[in-house]
Amino acid sequence: MFSTVNKPVERVDAHEKVTGRAKYGADLQFTGMLYGKVLRAKHPSAKIKNINTEKACSTPGVWAVMTAQDVPCNEIGVILQDQQILAKERIYYIGDGVAMVAAESLEVAAKALEAIEVEYEEISGIFDPLESRSSDPIHPDRNSNEVVHHKLRKGDVEEGFAGSDVIIERQYETQFVEHSYIEPEAVEAVPYENGSLVTIYGSVQNIFATRDAVARCLKADLSKIRVVQNHIGGTFGGKDEVVSAMACRAALLALNTNRPVKMVNTREESIVESYKRHPYKMNYKVGATKEGKLVAMEIKAVADGGAYACQTPFVTWRSVVQATGPYEVPNVKTDTYGYYTNNVYTGAMRGYGSPQVIFANESFMDELAQELDLSPLEMRLKNILRNGSITASGQKLDRHEVSLDQVIEKAAQAIGYEEKYKEYSKPQSGAKRRGIGMAISYRGCSLGAEAVDGAGAVLSIQKDGSVYLYSGLSENGQGLKTVFCQMAAEELGIDIKHVNFLESNTLISPDSGSTVASRSTLVGGNAVLDASRRAKKALADFLASQYNLPAESLVFKDSHIFTSDGKKLISFAEAARKAFWAGVQLSHVGWYVAPSIHWDEEEGKGSPYFTYVYGCQIAEVEVDMGTGEVTVLNMAAAHEVGRAINPATLKGQIYGGVMMGLGYSIMEEVETEEGYITNTNFDEYIIPTSKDMPNIIPIIVENPDPDGPFGAKSIGEPTLELGAAAIANAIAQATGKRIRSLPLNLERVLLGHPLRKGRGKK
Amino acid sequence: MFSTVNKPVERVDAHEKVTGRAKYGADLQFTGMLYGKVLRAKHPSAKIKNINTEKACSTPGVWAVMTAQDVPCNEIGVILQDQQILAKERIYYIGDGVAMVAAESLEVAAKALEAIEVEYEEISGIFDPLESRSSDPIHPDRNSNEVVHHKLRKGDVEEGFAGSDVIIERQYETQFVEHSYIEPEAVEAVPYENGSLVTIYGSVQNIFATRDAVARCLKADLSKIRVVQNHIGGTFGGKDEVVSAMACRAALLALNTNRPVKMVNTREESIVESYKRHPYKMNYKVGATKEGKLVAMEIKAVADGGAYACQTPFVTWRSVVQATGPYEVPNVKTDTYGYYTNNVYTGAMRGYGSPQVIFANESFMDELAQELDLSPLEMRLKNILRNGSITASGQKLDRHEVSLDQVIEKAAQAIGYEEKYKEYSKPQSGAKRRGIGMAISYRGCSLGAEAVDGAGAVLSIQKDGSVYLYSGLSENGQGLKTVFCQMAAEELGIDIKHVNFLESNTLISPDSGSTVASRSTLVGGNAVLDASRRAKKALADFLASQYNLPAESLVFKDSHIFTSDGKKLISFAEAARKAFWAGVQLSHVGWYVAPSIHWDEEEGKGSPYFTYVYGCQIAEVEVDMGTGEVTVLNMAAAHEVGRAINPATLKGQIYGGVMMGLGYSIMEEVETEEGYITNTNFDEYIIPTSKDMPNIIPIIVENPDPDGPFGAKSIGEPTLELGAAAIANAIAQATGKRIRSLPLNLERVLLGHPLRKGRGKK
Repeated sequence: MFSTVNKPVERVDAHEKVTGRAKYGADLQFTGMLYGKVLRAKHPSAKIKNINTEKACSTPGVWAVMTAQDVPCNEIGVILQDQQILAKERIYYIGDGVAMVAAESLEVAAKALEAIEVEYEEISGIFDPLESRSSDPIHPDRNSNEVVHHKLRKGDVEEGFAGSDVIIERQYETQFVEHSYIEPEAVEAVPYENGSLVTIYGSVQNIFATRDAVARCLKADLSKIRVVQNHIGGTFGGKDEVVSAMACRAALLALNTNRPVKMVNTREESIVESYKRHPYKMNYKVGATKEGKLVAMEIKAVADGGAYACQTPFVTWRSVVQATGPYEVPNVKTDTYGYYTNNVYTGAMRGYGSPQVIFANESFMDELAQELDLSPLEMRLKNILRNGSITASGQKLDRHEVSLDQVIEKAAQAIGYEEKYKEYSKPQSGAKRRGIGMAISYRGCSLGAEAVDGAGAVLSIQKDGSVYLYSGLSENGQGLKTVFCQMAAEELGIDIKHVNFLESNTLISPDSGSTVASRSTLVGGNAVLDASRRAKKALADFLASQYNLPAESLVFKDSHIFTSDGKKLISFAEAARKAFWAGVQLSHVGWYVAPSIHWDEEEGKGSPYFTYVYGCQIAEVEVDMGTGEVTVLNMAAAHEVGRAINPATLKGQIYGGVMMGLGYSIMEEVETEEGYITNTNFDEYIIPTSKDMPNIIPIIVENPDPDGPFGAKSIGEPTLELGAAAIANAIAQATGKRIRSLPLNLERVLLGHPLRKGRGKK
Repeated sequence: MFSTVNKPVERVDAHEKVTGRAKYGADLQFTGMLYGKVLRAKHPSAKIKNINTEKACSTPGVWAVMTAQDVPCNEIGVILQDQQILAKERIYYIGDGVAMVAAESLEVAAKALEAIEVEYEEISGIFDPLESRSSDPIHPDRNSNEVVHHKLRKGDVEEGFAGSDVIIERQYETQFVEHSYIEPEAVEAVPYENGSLVTIYGSVQNIFATRDAVARCLKADLSKIRVVQNHIGGTFGGKDEVVSAMACRAALLALNTNRPVKMVNTREESIVESYKRHPYKMNYKVGATKEGKLVAMEIKAVADGGAYACQTPFVTWRSVVQATGPYEVPNVKTDTYGYYTNNVYTGAMRGYGSPQVIFANESFMDELAQELDLSPLEMRLKNILRNGSITASGQKLDRHEVSLDQVIEKAAQAIGYEEKYKEYSKPQSGAKRRGIGMAISYRGCSLGAEAVDGAGAVLSIQKDGSVYLYSGLSENGQGLKTVFCQMAAEELGIDIKHVNFLESNTLISPDSGSTVASRSTLVGGNAVLDASRRAKKALADFLASQYNLPAESLVFKDSHIFTSDGKKLISFAEAARKAFWAGVQLSHVGWYVAPSIHWDEEEGKGSPYFTYVYGCQIAEVEVDMGTGEVTVLNMAAAHEVGRAINPATLKGQIYGGVMMGLGYSIMEEVETEEGYITNTNFDEYIIPTSKDMPNIIPIIVENPDPDGPFGAKSIGEPTLELGAAAIANAIAQATGKRIRSLPLNLERVLLGHPLRKGRGKK
């Protein structure tokens, strides 16, 4: 049926990556380039009494020393502008920048930072969001520490509980985690390049968000700021605000010195400064019939927003929408909150508010099943969303195939769930015990009612029949370039080798918002398809006039154009050549806006997303009862994606997501001690390695979505959000102990609580 | 009537140019960059017996030594591919490249070039196009040395001559001249940058032509080659093929070494290698009535094409179309020819085949007037094209205002032609004598029937209301950026400071052909206008839905949108912001294809251009009868341009064009001696300086053209094509001597012929 899509074609950027030709953020060098470095706060909460930069300024080789007073517009932030490019009077968290320098070498820059004298007055900070709730505002211009409160309402939970046979209530807690991209943040700012005021190159996840931040900071037109994404060594949602702030700083230094300026974070700087995944404290109260039908759910989730709002308002919105899990529950009352603290701030990370609530919800479903003496599988099948179901927010699912039953069945079958579940339910003894656990989810694709959901692409057919393609969304390692090239090649009926995807650049591509929310394939792909169709139509109209045939009847395939009855008319390359020389417009902008959705924030109801994906992951674990060590033996991961544009890169997403979920589940935690971060490198912040890799069984389930390009939906985030719960459920079966706090590391598995080492401030 | 167009707004690139921020071709540096240099031929005509590169290869610091055998596709050329990137077996002219090196410094590169041993066998060359006509083919694969022969036929010249009262016949001759751009050719080739195989930066006049050449040379897809134009220090048609060849060489070296490679010509290299304006030998035979009405013209013009075809076929085509001058002549027979020789090759230069024939034709008109005892003005007014006239090629001029009478009247009035003509006609004595001379022309705008005449532009409104703009045509110093920004600002009703014109880049802008033929404002401007209109329409449609008003009724001006009755609705910036957040597509490609034209090459008839501009220049000179020195005192230059988008930059074009015409007329000549060029720098190749500047009286005549953007047509070339004839006519009046060979330098004015110094081969 297809020639290029739905095939495991080689990544279009594979060659440059494996040969080392690919240039990453820190690889770029410019003539006359200076090195920028930031002096960071000494305390997580303090007043700045004085900054003396005199000695730093007179250090030989120093070109600029800048503080808050040198910044045209110092306030930054995507949703609220509550963050500062350089701290002016107050320090809100340990990663705040206080001053910055540009110098001829990193050594001189380090010397200059040491020479800056800052006088602080420490202020007692707030480090617990529940405490923050009733404390004086951390930010003097805010009325309270509440960043946001979202609600969702369906039916009447009090009536629901009254009509329930069983009601149970549990608390769950998750931790700060680090994105752990292999490449720390890196940008270069080049002043006055090719008609721009400043060009930013680097490891930028969201070129338009960074562009907006730099323009705001410099009080400049958006059309004067160019942001170009280089190859990026991972982001997972993490190279957004923190890189924007870095870009602003580099731009300020570059314009101040009229020199290119490079800024690269060390790993320690990255871990101290960059935002994390939100820790959540969650309370689940659920009522069910004795047969296991869910009747009412009341959920409260409190997120630690850290020092700045960042994306807390949107992250907690996704949580409020998805907190009940993929179940049809008649009565729901969910509230999610975000609070300021003086901890490191928290923002977007792959999953975006879903891993936390899924950990709680799917742990809870197992606990409830146990209470009702049902198997976890039975419990779920009684309650899952199906075609035509009404979600917790009141949305009827009738626009696409609701495939939870399919993903559950395929994952269970692949891993032999039922037999293993039965086997591991029998009493186990000995040092090593096994368990199997499942978790399922539904996930709203793309931005939903967060913001306008439009994306653009530019496609241009050259007179030799080769094609170039730009997208407003960017390749973050997820395989976007390959998927978009496949779509263009498929639509035009040409070989993918003639489609050249070019870098994402704010002054070329239409503003398409951010590359987030697993929206690239779906929303960006639709824009690529639109651009391809416009270019194809121009060519078809021209050929129609040449051959006196209806344009719609022409078939583009195998690098040729055919009549409807299969007669080969002309090669694509020759058609392009002729059309060009006949003056046909062959460059086209494609544009796509997601179908209309709505959310009533007051009522807590709506249709927040226009389509959903469905997933089921089942983990089989072995626990060492003497050490608490958990080994994940097998992980079946079944994901329904609409259509797999590239089954190979899609499996890559599953492998990576499973590993990230495994880290979240049993290893990773950014440890904080009164706002100080105590594990600032990978010696103490433990992430999974290839040795921790379980046997992963990736299962792709396809039900082409009418709104997806070639039927495709999303895969980026769902792969990561299920691991914690599935593994927790497996550990509970193996050990007979339910642990409700992440990570399920040695201490928790062994003792039920973490070992607090009391290392104190670093 | 207008807010931004038709106003002398400041050049948008003025600031960066005067502050030194503008980066020119040779200014760019890249990390790890190597220096490329070319070994050029020792003889203008020779066989290469052997090339030994061993010593060069082993020179420390040399990264690559390449010869013809290392080039994937060695044949290059825009029209015919008869030129070689590196000479393989034969040397055709003194500028041929034989080998090239990439080295860590210019010093090492020079040493390596010296170490290359080339064995030549000299072959006797051909240096006169008339001799070439009957000689054996210079290029072994061609049947003859004729590059091209164009004809134009109207009526019957034999009958015409039979019916004429007077028939006179004259020969005219023009010289090789240099473009004399202040910046010699410079490019950098960067391998594997941002998804491209190679990126070319530099002083590239025609980004698409250079891109096509590099792709062909490397046998690569066009969409893999990126050509970015930097600020350019003049081109005047000269940075086309020679820069393309340089780009191919730099690209080859860059891919060979996997390093960026810089190539910059010295002035001597530039003058030896680069193509020149064609020398012409022309025979004019004209019949007229005794009242001065032209009855028949028979014209033969032979162009020296030099070693390669280059643009000789198109240059001589413009000559054949315009050779009769702007006169209505019932019987015409014109033939133009181009021949290969072993001289330096000839190609595009501002004017493009018109300055030569205008020198002949307008000299001739004065000679004929004298014969018939008419004043030059009377002679012209009796014969000029007027509305509804039929041109020599048979085209009826009924689509635009034919304004020869206007330009003649305005120029004559401004300089006081009639009084001065009378005064200087009286017998003069003494060392210094004066004369006044006029020349007029019509000039077909843009490419005409040479090729498809399409151009594109990209315009994107950002969510802050600022705009960026790309064009497939490029800023060569002519003021294109400013004119295009004015057009976009005018159409959108915003301040020009919010319109940001970005660099010309083959992988962003639609392929718009070349920036030549004074087509930027006319054809490129229409594309900019189209892009602006599409973006404006998107915004208007959105606002129409918001305000429930017809979109067509909305008025965009003063950075706001108004109702048709003048009520201010919303600022442009706010409208852009709202439209963006409503998902409106705000990035648009504009496209324009010139109205249909035709040319019958067999019959020598047609409508070669869709519109024309008209000009009249009148020179007043003083001749030192003792030294032959000519001082141009005053020059009135009246040009009809449709509409002046920017009267200030338009006058700049007139000033520059007049100076260039003055150099062509009385100073400049690339001297060749059996194919060797003997004046290879500006010590011996004399160009006008500010001290030679006459009092120039620029006169802009406006008759908005229905096909022009805001009515605008062209100005780039007409300004230069009239000077030689006007000055020659003035000198003839002052001295009583008619000189029919350019340049009218000291020797010719004094002796009637040049002093041949017999300096021999250099």
